[in-house]
Amino acid sequence: MTPPRGTAAIFRDGVHALNVGLAAFAEPPRAHGATVTPLAWRPPASGDRELGLLVARLEDDPDDPIGARVRVANESAVARIVGARPMLVDVRPAREVIAALAGRTILHAGPPIDWARMCGPVQGAVIGAILFEGWASNADTARGLIDAGAITFAPCHEHGAVGPMAGIVSPSMPVVVVENVTAGNRAFATLNEGLGRALRFGAYDASVLDRLRWMAETLGPALARVLARGGPIDLKRITAQALQMGDECHNRNVAATSLFTRAIAPALTRNVDGPTAATVLEFLLANDHFFLNLSMAACKTALDAAHGVNGSTVVTAMARNGVEFGIRVSGTGARWFTDPAPVIDGLYFPGYGPADANPDLGDSAITETAGIGGFAMGGAPAIVRFVGGTPAEAVGYTRAMYGITLTRNPEYTLPALGFAGTPTGIDLRRVVESGVAPVINTGIAHREPGVGQIGAGIARAPLDCFAAALRAMAIELGVTASPA
Amino acid sequence: MTPPRGTAAIFRDGVHALNVGLAAFAEPPRAHGATVTPLAWRPPASGDRELGLLVARLEDDPDDPIGARVRVANESAVARIVGARPMLVDVRPAREVIAALAGRTILHAGPPIDWARMCGPVQGAVIGAILFEGWASNADTARGLIDAGAITFAPCHEHGAVGPMAGIVSPSMPVVVVENVTAGNRAFATLNEGLGRALRFGAYDASVLDRLRWMAETLGPALARVLARGGPIDLKRITAQALQMGDECHNRNVAATSLFTRAIAPALTRNVDGPTAATVLEFLLANDHFFLNLSMAACKTALDAAHGVNGSTVVTAMARNGVEFGIRVSGTGARWFTDPAPVIDGLYFPGYGPADANPDLGDSAITETAGIGGFAMGGAPAIVRFVGGTPAEAVGYTRAMYGITLTRNPEYTLPALGFAGTPTGIDLRRVVESGVAPVINTGIAHREPGVGQIGAGIARAPLDCFAAALRAMAIELGVTASPA
Repeated sequence: MTPPRGTAAIFRDGVHALNVGLAAFAEPPRAHGATVTPLAWRPPASGDRELGLLVARLEDDPDDPIGARVRVANESAVARIVGARPMLVDVRPAREVIAALAGRTILHAGPPIDWARMCGPVQGAVIGAILFEGWASNADTARGLIDAGAITFAPCHEHGAVGPMAGIVSPSMPVVVVENVTAGNRAFATLNEGLGRALRFGAYDASVLDRLRWMAETLGPALARVLARGGPIDLKRITAQALQMGDECHNRNVAATSLFTRAIAPALTRNVDGPTAATVLEFLLANDHFFLNLSMAACKTALDAAHGVNGSTVVTAMARNGVEFGIRVSGTGARWFTDPAPVIDGLYFPGYGPADANPDLGDSAITETAGIGGFAMGGAPAIVRFVGGTPAEAVGYTRAMYGITLTRNPEYTLPALGFAGTPTGIDLRRVVESGVAPVINTGIAHREPGVGQIGAGIARAPLDCFAAALRAMAIELGVTASPA
Repeated sequence: MTPPRGTAAIFRDGVHALNVGLAAFAEPPRAHGATVTPLAWRPPASGDRELGLLVARLEDDPDDPIGARVRVANESAVARIVGARPMLVDVRPAREVIAALAGRTILHAGPPIDWARMCGPVQGAVIGAILFEGWASNADTARGLIDAGAITFAPCHEHGAVGPMAGIVSPSMPVVVVENVTAGNRAFATLNEGLGRALRFGAYDASVLDRLRWMAETLGPALARVLARGGPIDLKRITAQALQMGDECHNRNVAATSLFTRAIAPALTRNVDGPTAATVLEFLLANDHFFLNLSMAACKTALDAAHGVNGSTVVTAMARNGVEFGIRVSGTGARWFTDPAPVIDGLYFPGYGPADANPDLGDSAITETAGIGGFAMGGAPAIVRFVGGTPAEAVGYTRAMYGITLTRNPEYTLPALGFAGTPTGIDLRRVVESGVAPVINTGIAHREPGVGQIGAGIARAPLDCFAAALRAMAIELGVTASPA
């Protein structure tokens, strides 16, 4: 089961060798005239023997009570992800649908974090939200409120919500209400502001706040009316179509946004006055990323439905607050497992470079957690012009993700990969055993508030949080590294 | 230069052979224990020595007056195709923009054909057009008019127009006006009716005629108003985007139709009353193929701009009337070169089969002539669910078309092929020399009028018409098969 470690295996007439392990192991055969091909292999569980034994104890095994339990739990969890049917049913002010937003509470992206540790874009966005809510009239007063402890912070993910980048949700912001009609659960996300200066990058000047007001007063109510009169919009169907049209529904959403616009345009035109309908359609025309937030909420409903299955090693959230990268796992409940947020390998807009970049930020990795985004890059070759790399590498990412996921989503298929389903249901065990980190394609925010997006690229999830989650899972199931 | 013909070339330790030519040539090496791989190769110019010599005489050659002239002419022709910038500028009743439609004239798809030889769908569509125009009140009276010679027929292509399937254009039908702003020329196409019973398949019942009236009275004027108030729509930009979104803009137009809808929706909502705008948007929502006719007119402007370049071997039209397949070539002017229309290898809708199929029909092969459609299939893998085959075969078609085209369109790139430009500018010489027939993906019409589309698939252009065109080209240039 374990490949040979640190040896050069000789094959084919003794002239070619594969080297697995340290480069030095290649020297003896090479000295004898052999060609040696190094293999990118690392020992299971990063060579951590105890971790490797824990993985082995959690493997599917019908003859072992733990193994049987994990298998059944995972089958249930992935069935809930694949079976989710997210529908956009409403757009409401956040306070009306998120109970935590009754008072002066602000939700943010990623795992929990207090004000002092927040990164620049999140702090900027918090100040913007306080100004937008009218809790303070300028940034200094807003900071005063925060310092006085008058503002409560909580992660979006803990309240059924998700937000891109800073992920700030405050009570008056309109949020999409997405219902997974299979399980009956709901998720929420703000409306996408478009590119340029935006709250999600920490900007809070007058133009940003004016747009937020227009979204609250005009865009949100118009969309709510469309949904009330025209009926819910099937986000699963749009996502499935968009995946056949070169979107991966994280950083490329032009097909989904176009399909969404086309789907709502008739009801919008019938039920909203002409000038308002026109401004809504102009806003949708100018923002190829509008569908991102809908995609995120749709993914959140699928993963929340799969969360809390006792014994399941399925990852149900990957999220970043710009300082820490955190995951949650179906079988370990509300607990977060975190690592420092990684830096992103990407393409920078002119005038910016890695030194300007904030570490990985936002809840948008919920798309990868659900099997799309970076996991579906193989079907979205045009995205390499945005995030870097080549179309072949994009296919390689998707193929690699099959190795750490439990199933293929039969409703989300990639024509370029022979209509293979997207790699779905990240299995903690496979990530820990293989050391293959989930791939996330993402925007890069400037580390200072308000500058905005400065590039896009590929982040790989840090691995220690997966190891910590696996250890917690083992404790949860009463499993130790000693033989059963 | 010419590969070995009819021999088995032995290589690699004498154990593997490639067979080029007759299958029988493989027998001797096989009898001696070799594995023999047959190669799909045929002799240049189908083994026609005279034709092969004519091709050789027309090859690019700076030291030969003819060769230099052909090269320069082809460079000019492909520059005009690639440089075309088709904009949708207006929608008008056909009679206002196509001079030939002043009287009782009807345009049809493909090369010229008289009533008696027209296939079922074209005859049905002609009767429908006569009824729509009010020239007759029933089918029998319409046939009486035709028999009396009161109706004039002409090919769309000869009047700046293109039409899918039957391709019928009569004076009162609204047509899109597409202007190639680079060269200043215009092309026209009817508006796409959608799936189901439609005039283009020869149906002419009340539902078909009612829809044609709605298109003339409501859809056409609404779109004209959008363009007058909102400005022209850049069809090249939409096509370029759609090619990155899995459309090939012949049989798959869902991305382009969605982008087009999104582009016109604001101006439609601003300038047309709400209920009318809503019916237009509902029509666009229900028809993923709406962009096809725009794509065809856009391609027609590019190819008409490249037509009539003395000495150019670039094919400027491939079109079918359901009986004959015809081509026109830049350097041979208005003349058509025809072959019997091929049957289509495809996927049939339930209940239908090849015996029900009309031979290849419609002007839509103008898309392939311009380098998209079947030529861009490699970037549209999802289309194989519609036309048959596999995504790998779709890539294979595009790769094969590079062998018979003069350039790659740098503005129409295919991400899945490493952002290669689409194969553009079919070169008569390469088709004749290689025997590689242009690939056309297309709908399949029932052979009886009015039944409609019964499938979709792949047609290969017949080759004799290319050989005839090459011979005509040689005569045009005063070239003979005897040595210079």
